[in-house]
Amino acid sequence: MITIFTGNGKGKTTAALGQAMRALGRGKKVLIIQFIKNCESGEHLFFKKIQAAEFGIKIKIIPAGKGFVKILGDKLPLSEHKKAAQSALKLAKKEILSGKWDLIIFDEVNVAVSLKLIKAVDVLNIISPCESALCSHGSVFVLTGRGAPKSFIKKADLVTEMKEIKHPFKKGVQAQIGVEF
Amino acid sequence: MITIFTGNGKGKTTAALGQAMRALGRGKKVLIIQFIKNCESGEHLFFKKIQAAEFGIKIKIIPAGKGFVKILGDKLPLSEHKKAAQSALKLAKKEILSGKWDLIIFDEVNVAVSLKLIKAVDVLNIISPCESALCSHGSVFVLTGRGAPKSFIKKADLVTEMKEIKHPFKKGVQAQIGVEF
Repeated sequence: MITIFTGNGKGKTTAALGQAMRALGRGKKVLIIQFIKNCESGEHLFFKKIQAAEFGIKIKIIPAGKGFVKILGDKLPLSEHKKAAQSALKLAKKEILSGKWDLIIFDEVNVAVSLKLIKAVDVLNIISPCESALCSHGSVFVLTGRGAPKSFIKKADLVTEMKEIKHPFKKGVQAQIGVEF
Repeated sequence: MITIFTGNGKGKTTAALGQAMRALGRGKKVLIIQFIKNCESGEHLFFKKIQAAEFGIKIKIIPAGKGFVKILGDKLPLSEHKKAAQSALKLAKKEILSGKWDLIIFDEVNVAVSLKLIKAVDVLNIISPCESALCSHGSVFVLTGRGAPKSFIKKADLVTEMKEIKHPFKKGVQAQIGVEF
């Protein structure tokens, strides 16, 4: 099963995190690979806390990007972002093939594709064999990020567009710690 | 600050749960009051697990409803649903006034209002004093559920409409444990 959270509104990554929470509650194993993102957010701190407690929750979250691309002062050559996204994809393949994970979240993968850091077809080639009946473990995939490629939407079972109706940044309010990140 | 997740697509409650996760990661205290809902979902099981471990995560989740209203075989008189929603609101008021909570999620409150179990104005009267500068603790509120009332949207700082683009239930796939609940 493939779920996509896309659109320009808030709630895409957070919905994926909520889905992770539900799956973990049911004793499932969750892998989150974050494209683009490279920094520690509230979710990383949360998982660190619960990992430390060791009570059988199986979650791995990997920020595998190099940060925002070409915005907010990013001066890194595009080739570096590409290299990071391609390594993330390679890592994703390895983890998927291990058969260890029930829920696999590719956070911001849609953005990585629209920025041409990786190809949509390469992502689908990795996912497709493992979400079908062909695959013994039949994982659930969640792909997030604005601007989901058409090929992802065509392939997906469930697609939600998070549409911005109102956003405080437009009123000049800054991102708040513990809310936005 | 008031955030609303509304619309007919999947991801409203899950986005609120993800936001809870981020806030908890930052050491904030989270209260979730669930209108309509009365059963144990993946998120309850998850919070039970992490509560049991006692490592300083402050979360309280209260399913305060009587289940789906007038669908899926519900035979309960509407008055019973009303009573439950009104009790939930009373409880919410008490908890908010305690000043204990940084993030307060009213899950499915939009639905409770559209079904006329509670009044939008009563919800706003409880929230408004506590999300403004008048209130020393200045909580963040998240209101979820399809069909958010106009008065909520007008008052909110951030509104996302989760729009259904594709949904497996339409293809006859049933809700999956650990994914949908």
